[in-house]
Amino acid sequence: MTNPTAAMLVIGDEILSGRTRDANMYFLAGKLTEVGIDLKEVRVVSDDAGEISNAVNELRGKFDHVFTSGGIGPTHDDITADNVAAAFGVSIGPREDAIAVLATNYPNGRADINAARMRMARIPEGAVLIDNAISKAPGFSLENVHVMAGVPKIFEVMLESLLPSIAGGDPVISETVRLQMPEGEVAGPLGKIALAYGDLSLGSYPFSNEQGYGTNVVVRGANRDLVAKAAGEVRTAFGVK
Amino acid sequence: MTNPTAAMLVIGDEILSGRTRDANMYFLAGKLTEVGIDLKEVRVVSDDAGEISNAVNELRGKFDHVFTSGGIGPTHDDITADNVAAAFGVSIGPREDAIAVLATNYPNGRADINAARMRMARIPEGAVLIDNAISKAPGFSLENVHVMAGVPKIFEVMLESLLPSIAGGDPVISETVRLQMPEGEVAGPLGKIALAYGDLSLGSYPFSNEQGYGTNVVVRGANRDLVAKAAGEVRTAFGVK
Repeated sequence: MTNPTAAMLVIGDEILSGRTRDANMYFLAGKLTEVGIDLKEVRVVSDDAGEISNAVNELRGKFDHVFTSGGIGPTHDDITADNVAAAFGVSIGPREDAIAVLATNYPNGRADINAARMRMARIPEGAVLIDNAISKAPGFSLENVHVMAGVPKIFEVMLESLLPSIAGGDPVISETVRLQMPEGEVAGPLGKIALAYGDLSLGSYPFSNEQGYGTNVVVRGANRDLVAKAAGEVRTAFGVK
Repeated sequence: MTNPTAAMLVIGDEILSGRTRDANMYFLAGKLTEVGIDLKEVRVVSDDAGEISNAVNELRGKFDHVFTSGGIGPTHDDITADNVAAAFGVSIGPREDAIAVLATNYPNGRADINAARMRMARIPEGAVLIDNAISKAPGFSLENVHVMAGVPKIFEVMLESLLPSIAGGDPVISETVRLQMPEGEVAGPLGKIALAYGDLSLGSYPFSNEQGYGTNVVVRGANRDLVAKAAGEVRTAFGVK
């Protein structure tokens, strides 16, 4: 059985302009690997209606899950929810359960929900809310598209609350062999081992330190014994323990 | 006149698996903003032939420039150059000028270029080399696609050597107004100002600190006077200096 696949869609002019360094991609990638969901593609698009809905439709057709980050706050540039609804062709509006949960975030409850904050309770028809333990304004899942906040702390708690409800696969096992040897000398023998283990992925990542160039070889796959066997062959081929 | 547009294509299983945190996107985004090239989209795809060449063809048709990162080393998983060539339908092979520059990296020159290292001198037909001041193995530009290394230090020197040859536009001017006020209270008045300045982008970025919630409003555009005028209106609307 193969693992479920996923894409991430980051919505944010602030990432594309270089103002903000994205943190959510790295967090999501690590979490998905833990639960056996294969992240296959990431896209970062600008705060543009057409770009968002096109990307949502392309990615949700291609992968089992799409995780989005950003654009669900109260301001005029927060247009993700509307364009996810548009991508699915469903309506969107304030929903009672979302208003109720949002109200718990303010000292005067509903009385503090002005027009801008009400935007955060607008949920596409048919969506399921995603908890936000920090600032309450919920994310949502619409079929296989999971819409979450861009602020890293909030993205993280939303993902933690969402993931147990998504079926994962076999967690990927990886073993790293560190070689104090440049990639150009590692490549030949490593290529032969990679060919012999078609079910595994053998990645090669160069580094440099005070002793010169080195290469981390990372063996990855679902079968622990096979990963250990291939890593053993790498160690033998390069004479390391 | 509008600025040239660009996309970035990151090739790397190590990013998608959460093993490595991408650093090149943030660096590229900042540099392009400085020279007035608008980064419109970023994609991260896996080390897969079809995914790479499809993304290259889609992005090069859609934007003025495509900057790629990763997959041009000597090992079996370095397949970017081949699949950029495939995307353009041109041949690829070791090129004399690339071999000559690569040889300067090794103590015995050409004698040290084994079969694996020779892979790094394979350049698609018609491409122009991009200097690599660190490890010599060159990147290349094929029409509007600029192929660079994934190792951040090498990506950075390649980009620095490439950028002066690419025509930029008007650098984007930005001004940030920091408000100690939650986004939900900023949103209403800010939306009205944003509507009045259609040529500018007014972004809103929440933060939290010991005094509670705050919002950074970032006004961006090519016209310095207009940016200053809009930022002034934001300050006036929220009573800050």
